[in-house]
Amino acid sequence: MLKQTRRILFPTCAILVLITTGVLAQNEPAFAPDKMDTILYGVAYYPEYMPSDRLDKDVELMQKAGITVVRVGESTWSTWEPRDGEFQFAWMQRVLDRLHQAGIKAILGTPTYSIPTWLYKEHPEILVTHNGTAPPLGDSHFKDHPAVIGYQVDNETAPTGIPTHYTNAAFLERLKQKYKTPETINKIWGLVYWGQLVDKWDDLPPRDGILNPGYKLEWENFQHDIVTEYLAWQARIVNEYKRPDQFITQDFSGGVHTNLDQWAIARNLDIVAENPYFETQKRLDASGIWLAGDLGRSLKHTNYLVTETNAQTIGWDSRTQYPQYPGQLRLVVYTHLAAGANMVEYWHWHSLHYGQETYWKGVLSHDLEPNRTYAEVSRVASELKRIGPELVNLKKDNKVAILFSADSANALSYMPFSDHANYMSILRQMYGALYELNLEPDFVAAGDAKLSRYKVLLVPPLYSASDTALQQISDYVKNGGQVVMAFKSGFTDEHSTVRDVMAPGPLRAATGFHYQEFTNLAEPERLTPDPYGVGEQNKGAMWEEFLVPDTADVVASFDGPYWKFPAITRNRYGNGVLTYEGTVVTDALQREIVHEVLKRAGLTGPDQNLPPTVKVRSQERSSRSPIHMARDRIS
Amino acid sequence: MLKQTRRILFPTCAILVLITTGVLAQNEPAFAPDKMDTILYGVAYYPEYMPSDRLDKDVELMQKAGITVVRVGESTWSTWEPRDGEFQFAWMQRVLDRLHQAGIKAILGTPTYSIPTWLYKEHPEILVTHNGTAPPLGDSHFKDHPAVIGYQVDNETAPTGIPTHYTNAAFLERLKQKYKTPETINKIWGLVYWGQLVDKWDDLPPRDGILNPGYKLEWENFQHDIVTEYLAWQARIVNEYKRPDQFITQDFSGGVHTNLDQWAIARNLDIVAENPYFETQKRLDASGIWLAGDLGRSLKHTNYLVTETNAQTIGWDSRTQYPQYPGQLRLVVYTHLAAGANMVEYWHWHSLHYGQETYWKGVLSHDLEPNRTYAEVSRVASELKRIGPELVNLKKDNKVAILFSADSANALSYMPFSDHANYMSILRQMYGALYELNLEPDFVAAGDAKLSRYKVLLVPPLYSASDTALQQISDYVKNGGQVVMAFKSGFTDEHSTVRDVMAPGPLRAATGFHYQEFTNLAEPERLTPDPYGVGEQNKGAMWEEFLVPDTADVVASFDGPYWKFPAITRNRYGNGVLTYEGTVVTDALQREIVHEVLKRAGLTGPDQNLPPTVKVRSQERSSRSPIHMARDRIS
Amino acid sequence: MLKQTRRILFPTCAILVLITTGVLAQNEPAFAPDKMDTILYGVAYYPEYMPSDRLDKDVELMQKAGITVVRVGESTWSTWEPRDGEFQFAWMQRVLDRLHQAGIKAILGTPTYSIPTWLYKEHPEILVTHNGTAPPLGDSHFKDHPAVIGYQVDNETAPTGIPTHYTNAAFLERLKQKYKTPETINKIWGLVYWGQLVDKWDDLPPRDGILNPGYKLEWENFQHDIVTEYLAWQARIVNEYKRPDQFITQDFSGGVHTNLDQWAIARNLDIVAENPYFETQKRLDASGIWLAGDLGRSLKHTNYLVTETNAQTIGWDSRTQYPQYPGQLRLVVYTHLAAGANMVEYWHWHSLHYGQETYWKGVLSHDLEPNRTYAEVSRVASELKRIGPELVNLKKDNKVAILFSADSANALSYMPFSDHANYMSILRQMYGALYELNLEPDFVAAGDAKLSRYKVLLVPPLYSASDTALQQISDYVKNGGQVVMAFKSGFTDEHSTVRDVMAPGPLRAATGFHYQEFTNLAEPERLTPDPYGVGEQNKGAMWEEFLVPDTADVVASFDGPYWKFPAITRNRYGNGVLTYEGTVVTDALQREIVHEVLKRAGLTGPDQNLPPTVKVRSQERSSRSPIHMARDRIS
Repeated sequence: MLKQTRRILFPTCAILVLITTGVLAQNEPAFAPDKMDTILYGVAYYPEYMPSDRLDKDVELMQKAGITVVRVGESTWSTWEPRDGEFQFAWMQRVLDRLHQAGIKAILGTPTYSIPTWLYKEHPEILVTHNGTAPPLGDSHFKDHPAVIGYQVDNETAPTGIPTHYTNAAFLERLKQKYKTPETINKIWGLVYWGQLVDKWDDLPPRDGILNPGYKLEWENFQHDIVTEYLAWQARIVNEYKRPDQFITQDFSGGVHTNLDQWAIARNLDIVAENPYFETQKRLDASGIWLAGDLGRSLKHTNYLVTETNAQTIGWDSRTQYPQYPGQLRLVVYTHLAAGANMVEYWHWHSLHYGQETYWKGVLSHDLEPNRTYAEVSRVASELKRIGPELVNLKKDNKVAILFSADSANALSYMPFSDHANYMSILRQMYGALYELNLEPDFVAAGDAKLSRYKVLLVPPLYSASDTALQQISDYVKNGGQVVMAFKSGFTDEHSTVRDVMAPGPLRAATGFHYQEFTNLAEPERLTPDPYGVGEQNKGAMWEEFLVPDTADVVASFDGPYWKFPAITRNRYGNGVLTYEGTVVTDALQREIVHEVLKRAGLTGPDQNLPPTVKVRSQERSSRSPIHMARDRIS
Repeated sequence: MLKQTRRILFPTCAILVLITTGVLAQNEPAFAPDKMDTILYGVAYYPEYMPSDRLDKDVELMQKAGITVVRVGESTWSTWEPRDGEFQFAWMQRVLDRLHQAGIKAILGTPTYSIPTWLYKEHPEILVTHNGTAPPLGDSHFKDHPAVIGYQVDNETAPTGIPTHYTNAAFLERLKQKYKTPETINKIWGLVYWGQLVDKWDDLPPRDGILNPGYKLEWENFQHDIVTEYLAWQARIVNEYKRPDQFITQDFSGGVHTNLDQWAIARNLDIVAENPYFETQKRLDASGIWLAGDLGRSLKHTNYLVTETNAQTIGWDSRTQYPQYPGQLRLVVYTHLAAGANMVEYWHWHSLHYGQETYWKGVLSHDLEPNRTYAEVSRVASELKRIGPELVNLKKDNKVAILFSADSANALSYMPFSDHANYMSILRQMYGALYELNLEPDFVAAGDAKLSRYKVLLVPPLYSASDTALQQISDYVKNGGQVVMAFKSGFTDEHSTVRDVMAPGPLRAATGFHYQEFTNLAEPERLTPDPYGVGEQNKGAMWEEFLVPDTADVVASFDGPYWKFPAITRNRYGNGVLTYEGTVVTDALQREIVHEVLKRAGLTGPDQNLPPTVKVRSQERSSRSPIHMARDRIS
Repeated sequence: MLKQTRRILFPTCAILVLITTGVLAQNEPAFAPDKMDTILYGVAYYPEYMPSDRLDKDVELMQKAGITVVRVGESTWSTWEPRDGEFQFAWMQRVLDRLHQAGIKAILGTPTYSIPTWLYKEHPEILVTHNGTAPPLGDSHFKDHPAVIGYQVDNETAPTGIPTHYTNAAFLERLKQKYKTPETINKIWGLVYWGQLVDKWDDLPPRDGILNPGYKLEWENFQHDIVTEYLAWQARIVNEYKRPDQFITQDFSGGVHTNLDQWAIARNLDIVAENPYFETQKRLDASGIWLAGDLGRSLKHTNYLVTETNAQTIGWDSRTQYPQYPGQLRLVVYTHLAAGANMVEYWHWHSLHYGQETYWKGVLSHDLEPNRTYAEVSRVASELKRIGPELVNLKKDNKVAILFSADSANALSYMPFSDHANYMSILRQMYGALYELNLEPDFVAAGDAKLSRYKVLLVPPLYSASDTALQQISDYVKNGGQVVMAFKSGFTDEHSTVRDVMAPGPLRAATGFHYQEFTNLAEPERLTPDPYGVGEQNKGAMWEEFLVPDTADVVASFDGPYWKFPAITRNRYGNGVLTYEGTVVTDALQREIVHEVLKRAGLTGPDQNLPPTVKVRSQERSSRSPIHMARDRIS
């Protein structure tokens, strides 16, 4: 069957492609993420990890439970190709055949995140990570198998960040392409400082030990692009062979990532997948699950898949074993679906008897017999069999968005403003305000020109951004948008270089103030007045900008012995309003600031007055009335 | 006198043997650890460290104090052989002669733990440790000296654990010998996980960066064996030359070690030595001293030596200077003897004026004049001169044992169940229960077939053990033994691989329950009922197994909102009873659980009702009535 | 203009000398640090860091503010010599010309602390530091420029401590020169311990991993000497070309340094400079500023310069942004002057838009426009224009000194007595006692023979000192001096080797006691009686020596259940008195002990009875009456 083996060495990684004969043209309609038939419900399955052959027994148990999909094969290169050039397919053929026979669909992983030992003996240059794994790719041998509905390229891919001979050379090449001459980086990164001017490209010091923020930010974006290009390249190869009705996905490790360009990666996928793990028992909360879901859904503005989530327990050892209380597993499935997921898959079917993830327990315990979790999975599966077609392809039309800037998160990590807060904690605080208010946002990347689809935009510290990105926000306000913006926004440009004009630079007209100074706050300080009525929580902490209003109204101010600068301002600019926080506000204050802006934007209603334990998500379905789903928050 | 020099390079270490002429046959009776004449009492002595020649003065002071033994020479290779092939013996001859003249016995150390600078310049491969020392061996030049009663091979030898070119190669060789084919380790370690299958032995990755628990456990045992073989090899060489009446010992650093196979090492020694150091002043407590002593005595089931213990103060700098209160030094001597020690030697005679151990003060302070400690040593020496023959060779016939499993301690360290407890803390808790109850245990290694000599066996988490070792415990219960067993026992096999049957696997019949799930506990939880009457202390913490009794009785259970599983069970199995703790119990609860079992075994009496400040140890002497020794615990 | 380029590679560093023609002989009087015309007031200025050419604008703003001096050029090698052998001077010529035109003086830095990237590509051996910078030197091109009043060699130079091939070899050479044979170091460092005797010099292990305190102390002093010789060598070269009226300085990073021999460095300078940064807002306190000033002034017993101090905010990121309250900048200028500073320069003129020090803000913020700080600088400048000639060249004749021993600080760091105190904390406690008592001290180096100029000498733990240094102190007391001496003094010699006689060795007669033992204290302990009336503060902590008085009077003693040794003693010896603290006393107790000794020495008066918020410094001026300056301490 095998016609050709193609192995390509990508910078710092490797790829294995197994090319087979097969009918490339298909009559099936092409895959569309929002046109799926029903909710898929299943598990990752590693028959090869079993202590003994249990394929029949396992598939029988899955079938009995009502499982409809499994993911297979994503860490199996050494099983496919135990020795250089010797391939084994029969084992997977048997697995897929058995699944198909049981009516269970399969998602086939490229085995590239785990390479065989013989391969890195031969090509040590592909090893750039600390833990001895590196990303390769493989397999379209089974593309024609009727059980296979899609492919997952690699697995939770992330850059190592490690400077090697190869990555340093590639980075230098990138700089040459992008900036043409050393004079340009001397200028934009300020290499004259400490006398580090670069006269020839080759004099540029390698990444290790670099302190220059501009260099570090460029390196970070270079790392983003390595991952994007690596996954795009795998997707291109899979696209050469897959059927039109099969999809390509990649599974993000869950949540918002500052070390990836998730939007760029998503453009190479047919559907996005997320692996949102969560805390359980008393600490179960939908907030983190929905944050991952809202992000996953926003990447392509459509439905997404959950490829991995908690079955029994998670963790690298037995210090974090908190199996779900009775009913929590079921509750969480609907939580995923409420965010727009079209599939929920557990990691994983059975519990491992060896290896680092021994205590990351699957649906089955180590004894491999039915148990409490299996029973709850069975119950959910039977429900989904009935109502899955009602819950699939749910559409969202959110009017609030959170503006995400990986550059700002990274640049602030080089120049932190506090040990107790950072870019992501402010982003999570803003997300949390919406969560408490029962309003779900989209995420939008800084620099996205299409802001006008939203009525309200929440902006965590937009510390590093180009003039263009800032202009988009100003225009958005001018055209009627409502913005809640955090401190430090506009302070540096896209190279993390401070602007040499009064802060906040290009945002001055939209914010309606300027400032020359700022101070850390050793202790939280009271604000005055208390326009939101939050009492003891009417405080700013960690950071205070010495805002001098030009056109902005002062909402609340600091009240120190020497300085009484505004802490919160509100500026009408064109048809919109920009509300600014010149400090780290308390959670309660953030919620009220956001609430007030939402009201002004006409986005509030009865859902904002529910008891705190009731959470609501709304969605439209193609031809039916909207579904409302509520859940009790366990506290 | 010197006939031949033999220097052998052992993997990762070096050995120096100085062979002399001498009458090899002797008429002295062979040494026996339980047939010594009296308690030996003395010091380690380093005349070579003195700022000026004080041999006469020192020996005179020792003789005046009543000291009967000194240990000499264990870190002196560069003094014996200052240049390659040039030997100097006269200095030690003079020392031994002078000691002999004073009637003081000597224990001669092989100088192998500290090698000369010129030697590691010549043979850098012997250096595998971080601190620049490596174990060599030397000297039987003085074997015929009448002052020499025995030899200490090396000093507190421990494996470095560091993977080097040499150790990685030796480890691979061990695997080939032990497991024959890579398929075996693929299977037992589960290398299929994350696609790490090994096709050829040479593809096996070296130790650094390994996460696989099975690999790590094998490496740990390999490290054990390196030390055992290294010491056995030194002992063999010394045995070629020593007189029959002289002994070979090695000094363990004090206590129970998870990085050594102490039983295996002891098989190569004539008598075991321990170096138990302890906290002083208000923190003095016999528990740690006796734990080391009970372990040392259990290794060969006979008396042992204390080669090093606190004189004035200990510590690597002057942050831990706590000289003993008046009377504490004397109290501690009898504490050592109560555990079966036949010798007590201080580290050391004088205080060092330079080097890392400047503040590890000897009997004499830096001024080298008699002082408070010297006076108390003199008092004790005079007592021992009188009653030493009564206290020597004390015999123990303990009916309680603690089962020790280094594999379990190590495997649990790869997969810890808590940040606040581990294998050793549970072991110490069980030992502490016995200590408070005035009952002294032996230690027995997991896998020891002779369990029947004990009436009660306490089993800390026996997490990693072979089917055979578990069967021995089941048989022990069946035959009438009483067992107190901690959670997680039986969970993995001797490769740290989880058993693929209902937990606790082969122990199911003896424990009388099974379980599929477990949870960590974020907070300690109350148990119900309170059968031991410990009130507030009736709690389990950190870990809860979801025990489902088959035949076991429930002694106390958790009482959570969702789960009410048994925390303590009791199962009659054959003629014995196994009491199981499915959680980390409080100290008070542990003590009462153990107390109840001891009562059932008929091992309690008036000693268990003494005030807590009175501690008792009992022993038999060959032909005389037992001695009871009591001491006040200082609190 | 350029006649010759001289580049010399110094061990571990590089030097660039630009030699120009020029009239070497000058008619100007030679520079004298105590004969300056007025207080200089200015900034460090980096026109090369500006985002655009602002020279005219900047100098105009400086001139308007009243700034009289700037420091330029100390990190500019890559601007001087962008490629090997290609020099550019015009840019600096323009800067100096423009400054001169505005009547502003310049201090020209040698650019040696920051070397060009091409140079360390060519000579990687000069790179010995972690952060990729290494010290080089350059420039006397502008020595004849009338604006140039002096040169700063390098910048805050400190040893890296890092052992390299080069430094290990140089260290070995030093040992050979100093100690002649390996036997000497075997003896003084006690290398016989752990069998580390060195037979040939080449067998000596390199610095990494060394535990021997004597070796470490020698290495530390070797590091001191590297810096001293490096700066002396730069000073010699500058001296070949500079005008007699120009000075050479070097700027210490502020305060007392244990990794430098500041007295030795100062001997190569015409005037000492300090860079004292300080905490601001509520934490502003003169103590640290004066400690740096008193040290700087003591190095040559004359006035000194402040080359860098806080403008707006300091710190490596934005976690430490605490701009000065209104008025604090002015207050601090007079604080510097009160300690004898003849110049105050801010770091720096403008704030950096890139690089690691983006948030170490200058007089101007990133917007480069006048602001609050600029206004306060302008006010101070106008005051100094008027009263500067009155405040310059102030003379001190202090009668109290603190004896500083870098050897003791370093040796104690190898053998710390506590985690909560060390040599420097005791020194600061003694300094703080004087600060609270409104008495300013000089600093004097251990081994300085001229102690008799002081009436009172405070001695932090003089742990490592030669017999000669101790004899000087004994003689000082005998001749009428008053000494307050801390515990552990006299314990080890100049090699950190403990003396083999009763402690405190050669100090026994002067202290009037001896001791053989000591203990740490787990908790602070009360003393009795309470001769200073400090009540709850009458305590000793961390350390207790078992002092046995020979001739000393007991001032206060410990009162433990076992030991009641003296904690504070007072011994009349010849015409003087030595007060000894055998423990770490509380701050309040230290202050009263010092106060009592000052009274006895007749050094107290009305200044010691001022409210705590009033601080006084006194000085003599050549021909005028003394000035008293008071300030409010902000608390």
